[in-house]
Amino acid sequence: MESIRRYRQEHAGEIVQELVSFVRVPNNVYVVEQIQRNAGALRAILERRGIRSELLPTVTGKPLVYGELLTPGAAAAMLIYGHYDGVPAEPARWHSDPYEPVLRTHLPVGPEADWSAFGLPANGWFDGDWRLFGRSVADSKNAIIAMMAALDALRAAGQRPGINLKFLFDGEEELESPCLPAVLETYRERLAADVMISASGERHQSGRPTVEFGIRGILMFDLTVYTGTVALHSGHFGNFAPSAAFQLAHLLASLKRQDGGVQIEGFYDEVTPLSESELNAIRQIPAVEEQVRRQFGLARAEVEGRSLQELINLPTLNVRGVRSGFVGDEARNIIPNTATADFDVRLVRSMDPDRTLATIAAHIERQGWTVLDREPSRAELLAHGRVVRLRKRSGFPATRTPLDSPVAGQVVKALQRAADEPLVVMPTEGGSLPMCLFEQIGLPFVGLPTSNFDCNQHTDDENLQLEYLFEAVDLFASLFRWE
Amino acid sequence: MESIRRYRQEHAGEIVQELVSFVRVPNNVYVVEQIQRNAGALRAILERRGIRSELLPTVTGKPLVYGELLTPGAAAAMLIYGHYDGVPAEPARWHSDPYEPVLRTHLPVGPEADWSAFGLPANGWFDGDWRLFGRSVADSKNAIIAMMAALDALRAAGQRPGINLKFLFDGEEELESPCLPAVLETYRERLAADVMISASGERHQSGRPTVEFGIRGILMFDLTVYTGTVALHSGHFGNFAPSAAFQLAHLLASLKRQDGGVQIEGFYDEVTPLSESELNAIRQIPAVEEQVRRQFGLARAEVEGRSLQELINLPTLNVRGVRSGFVGDEARNIIPNTATADFDVRLVRSMDPDRTLATIAAHIERQGWTVLDREPSRAELLAHGRVVRLRKRSGFPATRTPLDSPVAGQVVKALQRAADEPLVVMPTEGGSLPMCLFEQIGLPFVGLPTSNFDCNQHTDDENLQLEYLFEAVDLFASLFRWE
Repeated sequence: MESIRRYRQEHAGEIVQELVSFVRVPNNVYVVEQIQRNAGALRAILERRGIRSELLPTVTGKPLVYGELLTPGAAAAMLIYGHYDGVPAEPARWHSDPYEPVLRTHLPVGPEADWSAFGLPANGWFDGDWRLFGRSVADSKNAIIAMMAALDALRAAGQRPGINLKFLFDGEEELESPCLPAVLETYRERLAADVMISASGERHQSGRPTVEFGIRGILMFDLTVYTGTVALHSGHFGNFAPSAAFQLAHLLASLKRQDGGVQIEGFYDEVTPLSESELNAIRQIPAVEEQVRRQFGLARAEVEGRSLQELINLPTLNVRGVRSGFVGDEARNIIPNTATADFDVRLVRSMDPDRTLATIAAHIERQGWTVLDREPSRAELLAHGRVVRLRKRSGFPATRTPLDSPVAGQVVKALQRAADEPLVVMPTEGGSLPMCLFEQIGLPFVGLPTSNFDCNQHTDDENLQLEYLFEAVDLFASLFRWE
Repeated sequence: MESIRRYRQEHAGEIVQELVSFVRVPNNVYVVEQIQRNAGALRAILERRGIRSELLPTVTGKPLVYGELLTPGAAAAMLIYGHYDGVPAEPARWHSDPYEPVLRTHLPVGPEADWSAFGLPANGWFDGDWRLFGRSVADSKNAIIAMMAALDALRAAGQRPGINLKFLFDGEEELESPCLPAVLETYRERLAADVMISASGERHQSGRPTVEFGIRGILMFDLTVYTGTVALHSGHFGNFAPSAAFQLAHLLASLKRQDGGVQIEGFYDEVTPLSESELNAIRQIPAVEEQVRRQFGLARAEVEGRSLQELINLPTLNVRGVRSGFVGDEARNIIPNTATADFDVRLVRSMDPDRTLATIAAHIERQGWTVLDREPSRAELLAHGRVVRLRKRSGFPATRTPLDSPVAGQVVKALQRAADEPLVVMPTEGGSLPMCLFEQIGLPFVGLPTSNFDCNQHTDDENLQLEYLFEAVDLFASLFRWE
C-alpha cells in the first residue's frame, strides 16, 4: 500500500487533470451527441491503460462502454459497473460553469459561505480539503479516474491485479439505465463474474471509507388532481369552484403525518426486518445526525427518534415537486383546476413497485377519490366528486447481498487494508439503482462509493473533496489486488 | 329605444369591425410600447365621435386616456371608467391568435367541443350566438366600442346625452392600476361627477342585463416554506430531511377544510351582514348554480348549501398557484427545501387587507410556524422548527354604494328601460378593482358589466358572445340619456 500512496501523491496533478479534462466534455444524459462524445473520451482513457475496450450499442444511441483487463493465472473475475452520464445542469443556478471545473477552498452552503476559486495549482500540490466543482466530478466520473489511477499505481509498483477485471460504464444511469437489461442479456456470458462492484455514490457522512451490500429500489409516479374543465376567475367563482391546489394539499397531508411518518395503511407491511449481522453492522456506524442537521440547516429530522441508518432501511415517500396554477410574477387570479405532485418512493428489500403503487392507490380511494390512469372527461368530473390521475413512471425492486457471504468477507478485507480508519459497512445504501438486474444474472452486488456525502450530486454546484479522490485510488488498488 | 336598436342592427358589421381593429393592437399590460400604441388607437376612436381627448401621463409610461363630451344644459355629470390593457396571452395555449380575432359558432369547453372558425361575414349579418375570440374582446375593449356605438346611435336618432360624460380609460387595470391614485388626486376637480360607471366585467350567469353596486377588495400575498439550505438527495436523506412540499401541504390543509370553508380563526369576523334591500335584491337573482356546475365540470360547489350570490358576499381564500421542486420531464430525485403558494383573498365590505393578513399570519403562528418577512438564514432555520416567509404583494378594500340611494334608483331605471328582461341587481360583484379610490373622492360606484360570464377573461381563448356586444349599445345609450 505504501508504494500505491506514494505514487498517487506524486501524480496528484495528473490525476486531477485527467478528471478535469473528462468533466469538460458535457454529459447531459438527455443529449445523445454529448453522451457519444463522452463514450469516445472514456474509451481513450481505458485504452491509455491497455484495456481492450468496445462500445456496446443500445437502441437509444447512448452506448455502454466495456473494457477487459485479464491477468494470466487469475482464478476469479470482478465486474466493475460505473457510469459516465450526468443529470442536466442549470448554469444560471451554479456559481461556476458546470463543465469548466474550478477548485475552491470552501464548501458553498448557505448565504454566509466564503468563496474563492482558482485553477489547478502550477506546483502540483493539492490540499485534500479543496473541492473541485463541476457536473459529474462526484457522480461519477471521479470513480472512473480513480480506478484508472489505481491501475497506474499498481503498474508503477510492479504489481498486477489479482483478479480479472471487467469494466462496464453506463451512459444512461441517470435515466435509470433503460438499455441495461438488454445489454446484460446480450452479453451475459462475457460479463460473468464472481462479484460486481458498483462504483458510484457517496461515502457515509462520517467521511470513513464505506462499502455497501445493498441498494434500495424505487417507484416513481405522479398524481394530478382535477376539479373542473378550466381554470376559473377567482373573483367570480371563488367559494364555488373547488381549488385543485387545496384538494391536492389535503390529499398530500393524508399521506404523511406532519412529523413525517407515512400514514398509508400497509405501506410498511412488506419491509423485511434486518438480520442480526446487519443490525450489528449498523450499530458500528458512527452517528452523524447532528453534523448533517447543522450542515444543511435542518431544525429536526423528518422522522425523529431513529438513526439515519435505521431510516435508510425503511421505505420513503417523497414529493419531488408540486405544480399548480402560477406563482410570483406569473401569478394571475384564477382558481387552478389541476394540481400535480411528482413522487419517488424508495423501496427496501422484499417490496415490489407495483404492489406498493396499489397500496398507495387504495389509500387514495379510501379518502374518497376516484383514481384514473388518464385525464378525466367532463362527464367523469361531474360523475365523481374527487378525481385524481395516478400515473406510474417507472420502478424496480431493491437488491441485497448477505453480509455473511464469502465474497462480502473478501471485499471487506481488501478495502480495510487500504483504509486508515474502520470501514463503514452498510447493509444497504439510501440511493436506488437497478442492481436487481445484476442479481438476476447471478452477480452479487457490492457498492463502493467514493464521493463526499455533501457533494450536491443531482443538483447545483456538484463538488468533490479531493482527499476522497486520492483515497479512492488506494481503495481500488487494494480491491484489484484481491488479496 | 327602437331607433337605437335599429341603428345597431344596421351597423352591426361596423361595430364588430371596430372592435376587431382595436383588438389587433396587442395590449400586454407588461409591455409599455404596446400600451402606448393602444392609447393612441383609443384616442382616435374617441376623436372620431368628436370627444375631446387627452393622455393623462403616469410614471410607468402607460397613460390613462381621458375624454369629455359636454352637453349644453346638462345638470349632472357621469364618469365612465374602463380599461384598454390586457393580461398577457400565451399563444401556444390558445386555439387562435389572441391578437387576430376570429368568429366561432361553438364555445370551446371540454374536449368534445365542435370547432369552426371564420372571418367577418361579407354580408354584414351576425348571429348573436356567435363568439369573437381574442385578448380583451371581453375584458374590456368591447365595453369601449359599445359605448362609442351608443353615442353614434343617439346621434343617428337625433338625440343627445342627458348628462355630461367624462371618460377615463386605464392602461394598467390588470396590474391593479398602480398610477390611478395619483391621477385621481391630480385631476380630482376635472373628474368630479354625480355617479361613476365602471364599464367592465361579466354579466350575471343567467345572461340577463346586470348592474352592480359594489365590488370586492383584494389581498394578494405569498407563502414560502423553508426546510433547509439546499435540496437534498431523496435516497440519501429521505425520512431524515423534512420536505418543504409536504410541510406546505399541511399548512394549506390547515387553512381550509376539504369542503372549502376557511378555518382561520377570525377570518369572517369583519364581514358586515347584508342590509334588507341587499338581501331582497339577492333573492330576485335567478339561480344558475346548476348551469355553472355542469358547464365547467364541477361535481359540487366548494362550499355547499349556499347560493353563488351568497358566496360572493363572503370573503374567499384562494391559492392561485403552488411551486415546489420539479415535476414531469424535469423531475429529479430531490427533497425540495422550499415550497411556495401564491394567494388571492377577496375582501367584502368592512374588511381591511392588512388586518386580514395579520389574522392569517396569527393562524399560521398558532400552527407552530415562525413567520418571517424574508428568506431565513441557516441560523434561523436551525433555531425554529417550521419557518415560513409571508410576503404581501398588494391589496385594497371593497366598495359599496347603498342600493336605496337616489343615484342607484336612477341607474336601475335607465338600464331597465333598455332591457327586455328584468335586470339583475347585485349588491356586489365577485371581482376586485380599486374602486375605493373613486369612493374616496366622492364618486359613488356603479358597475355595468357587458360580457358573457363564460368569456374566459384572464385566461386562454377569451371570447365575447356577440349579442352581449349589441345589447350593451342599447344599455349605454339609455344610460347616457339619463331619463
